Amino acid sequence: MKKTAIFPGSFDPFTKGHEDIVLRSLELFDEVIVAIGHNSNKKRYFEVDFIIGKINAAFEGDERVKVIVYDELTAILAQKHNARYLVRGLRNTTDFEYENSISQINKYLNAGLETVFLITSPDLAPISSSIIREVHRYGGDVTPFLPYKL
Amino acid sequence: MKKTAIFPGSFDPFTKGHEDIVLRSLELFDEVIVAIGHNSNKKRYFEVDFIIGKINAAFEGDERVKVIVYDELTAILAQKHNARYLVRGLRNTTDFEYENSISQINKYLNAGLETVFLITSPDLAPISSSIIREVHRYGGDVTPFLPYKL
Amino acid sequence: MKKTAIFPGSFDPFTKGHEDIVLRSLELFDEVIVAIGHNSNKKRYFEVDFIIGKINAAFEGDERVKVIVYDELTAILAQKHNARYLVRGLRNTTDFEYENSISQINKYLNAGLETVFLITSPDLAPISSSIIREVHRYGGDVTPFLPYKL
Amino acid sequence: MKKTAIFPGSFDPFTKGHEDIVLRSLELFDEVIVAIGHNSNKKRYFEVDFIIGKINAAFEGDERVKVIVYDELTAILAQKHNARYLVRGLRNTTDFEYENSISQINKYLNAGLETVFLITSPDLAPISSSIIREVHRYGGDVTPFLPYKL
Amino acid sequence: MKKTAIFPGSFDPFTKGHEDIVLRSLELFDEVIVAIGHNSNKKRYFEVDFIIGKINAAFEGDERVKVIVYDELTAILAQKHNARYLVRGLRNTTDFEYENSISQINKYLNAGLETVFLITSPDLAPISSSIIREVHRYGGDVTPFLPYKL
Amino acid sequence: MKKTAIFPGSFDPFTKGHEDIVLRSLELFDEVIVAIGHNSNKKRYFEVDFIIGKINAAFEGDERVKVIVYDELTAILAQKHNARYLVRGLRNTTDFEYENSISQINKYLNAGLETVFLITSPDLAPISSSIIREVHRYGGDVTPFLPYKL
Repeated sequence: MKKTAIFPGSFDPFTKGHEDIVLRSLELFDEVIVAIGHNSNKKRYFEVDFIIGKINAAFEGDERVKVIVYDELTAILAQKHNARYLVRGLRNTTDFEYENSISQINKYLNAGLETVFLITSPDLAPISSSIIREVHRYGGDVTPFLPYKL
Repeated sequence: MKKTAIFPGSFDPFTKGHEDIVLRSLELFDEVIVAIGHNSNKKRYFEVDFIIGKINAAFEGDERVKVIVYDELTAILAQKHNARYLVRGLRNTTDFEYENSISQINKYLNAGLETVFLITSPDLAPISSSIIREVHRYGGDVTPFLPYKL
Repeated sequence: MKKTAIFPGSFDPFTKGHEDIVLRSLELFDEVIVAIGHNSNKKRYFEVDFIIGKINAAFEGDERVKVIVYDELTAILAQKHNARYLVRGLRNTTDFEYENSISQINKYLNAGLETVFLITSPDLAPISSSIIREVHRYGGDVTPFLPYKL
Repeated sequence: MKKTAIFPGSFDPFTKGHEDIVLRSLELFDEVIVAIGHNSNKKRYFEVDFIIGKINAAFEGDERVKVIVYDELTAILAQKHNARYLVRGLRNTTDFEYENSISQINKYLNAGLETVFLITSPDLAPISSSIIREVHRYGGDVTPFLPYKL
Repeated sequence: MKKTAIFPGSFDPFTKGHEDIVLRSLELFDEVIVAIGHNSNKKRYFEVDFIIGKINAAFEGDERVKVIVYDELTAILAQKHNARYLVRGLRNTTDFEYENSISQINKYLNAGLETVFLITSPDLAPISSSIIREVHRYGGDVTPFLPYKL
Repeated sequence: MKKTAIFPGSFDPFTKGHEDIVLRSLELFDEVIVAIGHNSNKKRYFEVDFIIGKINAAFEGDERVKVIVYDELTAILAQKHNARYLVRGLRNTTDFEYENSISQINKYLNAGLETVFLITSPDLAPISSSIIREVHRYGGDVTPFLPYKL
């Protein structure tokens, strides 16, 4: 049976830290679905379609990586895709406490849904989407933090 | 002299984790006042009156539990109710750092106001009001996390 | 029914931080038993009898404070003393993670044994018995950290 | 060569905790620039000009302290002022995780920009600008937390 | 290619928390090797052979679980077993900080060795081998924490 | 007046992480004294004299770096060297909580002694002396973690 993992997030934008998690997840799973949580009523900094294009380009040629947009509970999304795994990166203790809660609730909502954690590579740990947005807003160069050109 | 504790929060909604704290506080105090902080200009997800009704029903028959709504400093509220104690649950280190600051400031504002902490039971620790709102918004079943039916 | 709390620790030595917890606990409980965990095969820095004398002197005249030595499980000790509460101070997140585990295990061992936490007063939070021992070993003045003279 | 440090923040309001960091920084650096990050489109609780006046008054006569307002990347601001250092206070682990990320990104943006950290004095650690705003909004006395009168 | 994961630890003793990690790992990997780090010069509380027997009994009939003893670097052990994965449980932030360091060093020593983390189930998170030893030493009942009888 | 900082530690061994802190401290201070805390009754893994030689070689030609051995309170050592600063690296939240306590106690013992913190560079943060000793004991290559050859 194919092992499919969902990598959920807002990816506003998708960073080198996210790319690192996808690449390492491919050693564990047969398929990794990058699932962009997006509610059309909420504003993003980078457009969803723009980011989808960039992620697809970053993993071009690798059919094991898919990109989708969703607007529902992650636990339900996983069921629809026959994915028994979520994958998430941990950068620090603040992440840990947040992800701890979320993963338990996901198990309540979808018995047996397992969240697998990878610790972010140290040199990528400082990178967060929110910091990148802040730097970009002020005209700073965010190229070193992204696996593609803006 | 009667020992009264205030259990302050927004309770949007009141969860099984909150119920656990109230029940355990009743072993320590003669009276526990569940104090819903609410500013009528701010929007809640669950209506205040709805939640008041649910909390009252959950502790029906137990005169030691009271529910009130307030829109002032918790330290001042405690004085008005002759409550020398606040009670708060700690789920994790993020809670701890936040509550640490708040409790010291409350002591400045009301000398001798003691905040008593109980650590949330492990199986209830992942539950937070914000996660419940998120699940409910997407139509997920939140019944396992609440001490009442919606 | 009398509310008795056990305040367990090694108290090697008993510090101003510990005194702070006892004094504040007396506002919550009718009796506070300072319980010095001590195995006669293990070496202490300060002799048990010396510390007992100092604690007794610090709370002289207050019959609500008792000092005992024990060498068994804290959860069992509490049963023998009809104490339904343990009290512990929290200085920081390292303390929190440690106490979280211990308190849950104590509940397993003695159903209904409640651990009540007080956050250490900020100016006393840096004080730990192990730092005091280190300072004393090198001849430093530890008087500012103790509620008695050595 | 003069050692200049930037102390960036929103300072809404500037607290005794901030004053503590400035005073201690003056033992390390020849000049400390308190840099108020402010975007004119964003609302503050305390007006920028009001806070500038209060900070200037607090350090009156000390020419080593300057106050400026900025609306750009901190790393770029530092370059313009020939400041090779940022200085930040750490109150707790939540601060640490946040500052850790920010400081690494600042180094990316401005190679060699060093962030120097001082741990906030324990009695001032509970004070945060957001708590002060909350207390002030409800008419509480915030004087004990500020190095000036409102 | 078979996916083999090493689950390293001292397992003194092997707990229900460890069992939980093994069972969940079997959903991810084809084979899980419980690797008991043991130096014959160091004293254990529970004998290695005793624990090996108990682990084998706990997973009796499941050929995907193996138990071995080792006394070398975990990163080297993994190479010998053609295991590209380590698996570790995370109970809290103290665990996280420790495991973060170890996993990066393991990657240095064995390029491509991936450590996969599962967060311990909340009801099992308070259980640690060191607490169990302490309870057992004092004659307390540790049966609720172990997947076998002593 | 010359700005002298003490960088205290056991340095068993001195790592690339320590070297990073020294190099960055030299941008802040006129002189950095690497102070190896050592009690001749305690066993080290790497001999003190060996490590002194390696540190001296690593900073050869830079007269601003000195290496000393001491066996007294760090706060007293600083007084003797007219050093008004200690410098310490922070790798993670566990370090933070520990250093927070130590730095406050040092201020008690030596009024005005300021501890300055630098956050360890991300790629060096996983390195600790205790992990290096463990790797070395098992014959692993620790060269990548040290600024010199063994």
